[in-house]
Amino acid sequence: MERILTSELAAHVGEHVMLRGWLQRERRLSRVAFLVLRDRAGTAQIVLDEETTLAPESVLEVTGSVVENAQAPHGVEIRASTVTALAAPSEPLPLELHRPEPREALPTRLDNAALALRHPAVRERFRLAARAVDAFRSRLRELGFTEIHTPKIVATATEGGANVFRLDYFGRDAYLAQSPQFYKQTMVGVFERVFETGPVFRAEPHDTGRHLAEYVSLDAELGFIDDHRDVMAVVETCVSSMLAAAGLEPPGLIPVVRFEDVRTGSEPDLAPDDERRICRQHGELVFVEGYPTAKRPFYTHPDPDRPQWSRSFDLLYRGVEIVTGGQRLHRYPDYVAELATREIDASPFSGYLDAFRWGMPPHGGFALGLERFTAQVLGATNVRETTLFPRDRTRLSP
Amino acid sequence: MERILTSELAAHVGEHVMLRGWLQRERRLSRVAFLVLRDRAGTAQIVLDEETTLAPESVLEVTGSVVENAQAPHGVEIRASTVTALAAPSEPLPLELHRPEPREALPTRLDNAALALRHPAVRERFRLAARAVDAFRSRLRELGFTEIHTPKIVATATEGGANVFRLDYFGRDAYLAQSPQFYKQTMVGVFERVFETGPVFRAEPHDTGRHLAEYVSLDAELGFIDDHRDVMAVVETCVSSMLAAAGLEPPGLIPVVRFEDVRTGSEPDLAPDDERRICRQHGELVFVEGYPTAKRPFYTHPDPDRPQWSRSFDLLYRGVEIVTGGQRLHRYPDYVAELATREIDASPFSGYLDAFRWGMPPHGGFALGLERFTAQVLGATNVRETTLFPRDRTRLSP
Repeated sequence: MERILTSELAAHVGEHVMLRGWLQRERRLSRVAFLVLRDRAGTAQIVLDEETTLAPESVLEVTGSVVENAQAPHGVEIRASTVTALAAPSEPLPLELHRPEPREALPTRLDNAALALRHPAVRERFRLAARAVDAFRSRLRELGFTEIHTPKIVATATEGGANVFRLDYFGRDAYLAQSPQFYKQTMVGVFERVFETGPVFRAEPHDTGRHLAEYVSLDAELGFIDDHRDVMAVVETCVSSMLAAAGLEPPGLIPVVRFEDVRTGSEPDLAPDDERRICRQHGELVFVEGYPTAKRPFYTHPDPDRPQWSRSFDLLYRGVEIVTGGQRLHRYPDYVAELATREIDASPFSGYLDAFRWGMPPHGGFALGLERFTAQVLGATNVRETTLFPRDRTRLSP
Repeated sequence: MERILTSELAAHVGEHVMLRGWLQRERRLSRVAFLVLRDRAGTAQIVLDEETTLAPESVLEVTGSVVENAQAPHGVEIRASTVTALAAPSEPLPLELHRPEPREALPTRLDNAALALRHPAVRERFRLAARAVDAFRSRLRELGFTEIHTPKIVATATEGGANVFRLDYFGRDAYLAQSPQFYKQTMVGVFERVFETGPVFRAEPHDTGRHLAEYVSLDAELGFIDDHRDVMAVVETCVSSMLAAAGLEPPGLIPVVRFEDVRTGSEPDLAPDDERRICRQHGELVFVEGYPTAKRPFYTHPDPDRPQWSRSFDLLYRGVEIVTGGQRLHRYPDYVAELATREIDASPFSGYLDAFRWGMPPHGGFALGLERFTAQVLGATNVRETTLFPRDRTRLSP
């Protein structure tokens, strides 16, 4: 007999079928037992004449007849003929999986991720993330972007600063890429339009609900732009597609405000409180453009008329920055001059700067953190809720 | 005026258009100059009344009329009105990009990757790889697989052994994942069927044309299988889709041979010469199944009737192994026993073994190296030809 999924039961009323999955719960009434069987598609109610001795999360193969029952989930249940255990847990569960939402504290769930992720509501978060990534890639392919894979082991800290992981690379020092920034810019010289979906690494010393030591970055970069507004148009269509894939209404035109106009006093950057206030005032999704050039990375393109302000932007979503991007410098002498102005040693960047030696068009791009995007979609207050196996200062396993 | 692509020229004969791209080459005849302009879609011939002083790889904006010319590539050319340089190289090129195939030695091309990858024939290799990855993901999604993203910074060497990179993780030791093996198995408990496309890291001490220190692994894992043959069926459909995306004929049914029957004498493994011989004898694509259990990783499922042989397989393509896979152990006590038999300390694996404490179905999976697959499709003898920025014992940049 061919196995069917729980989602296919309603099409098999009156038939004898086989299901496979996990025993999520067993309840006993006077004369019958009800099992909840969970498979990749959902859950089904199994009715038995007597209770079993099966432990929760036993892996089962069930055969039986599909019967309509208005009281059962989805209006159908299985009257079981046979229930066979394919595998059994070796010890009692440290978590409950049958509540509508998990009740255990986050650290307990993270310590027992292999089990906690089986919760139906929890696993759906990651299905949503998978659909969003697919939407990101599909939309960009439609726009002529090529997918690339760039190295994560690098010779230089990409984004500068202290939050870089150091590595023993055949006896010499190497680093984990904080972003694919240099490589995606280089690849504009090859494909004009590129994207990458992959891990990035930040040795974040702070424990916050917004930061991780490793996360999935959705990156894109495109050439032959007029300015950062062309990049924002790509962000807008990508985020719209991702929200639609998450089952939300696409936002329509996203409002744009100027950093100068929304900052607090003369502060050179936005604090988390500012980001929440801006979204309250201007909408769920808001572009903030024109950050101070000095507060952005050295590759940021200044506004030619007012060089202390940059052609950069962030996209805020429900009070949190989810995308950062902008136009980049594209002329080799501009890079040399900017690194000198900032008193940054240019020699570690020589491989990166090569691309600009051979003729690069005006270009720009952006990066979106997947776990943070998903957390904002779901209203989760901690990005660890939308990461399968989070990495932070204290957590390296499971 | 809206920019059009070189591939769109034939639809604009008689019109005034704008192109943007790179100056790939300039040739001068007595009274005219011919420019070859390269954009992301291809190349176009531009005719000018006089030669320019532009350096190759200058970034150009060209306006002009589209004229039919049977001698020109694709039967059309542009009679230029204006040629504007948007950016210029800052020094002479170390490579030529206008030959049908690159002529420089591989190290020269790798040292100058930012430029060398612009070669039209070279960049097409990576477009082919991008299509293959897309085909892999699409086919698996159709089969009910969920995409996952698992950590690359891990507490334990996944595949054991010496070829693991060590990392300073906030003052303690961590490692770069040699594969997503443990995590994809764990996620079978959540989604039943999962895949991941991402980087893996091997501190390979040998310099060969087949190995890299970092490469892109296409991984899948599925639950509720009978044995490794169910995994091979998924490999077959994925590889068929990938070959079709690469423009090759799908292979049809892939022959299967037994390791015992094709090895040389009583050797416990296949040497590269064996792999070439097996493909000559049995076909371009051949599954070899039933490797010795002792030669496969500890999570490999033995053949229950003959436990010295395993439910494992490799897929050979044109004489090289491109996929490795098999059924895995799924019972917790089996893992404990197997680690003890192999005299492997189980404590570093406790987080991994958790998944098997809570009930796991029979499952298996496979991994395919993207760069090696692409190299075999193209007949490249070195996997560095199909890697954007290769990493090996001596190469860490660009």
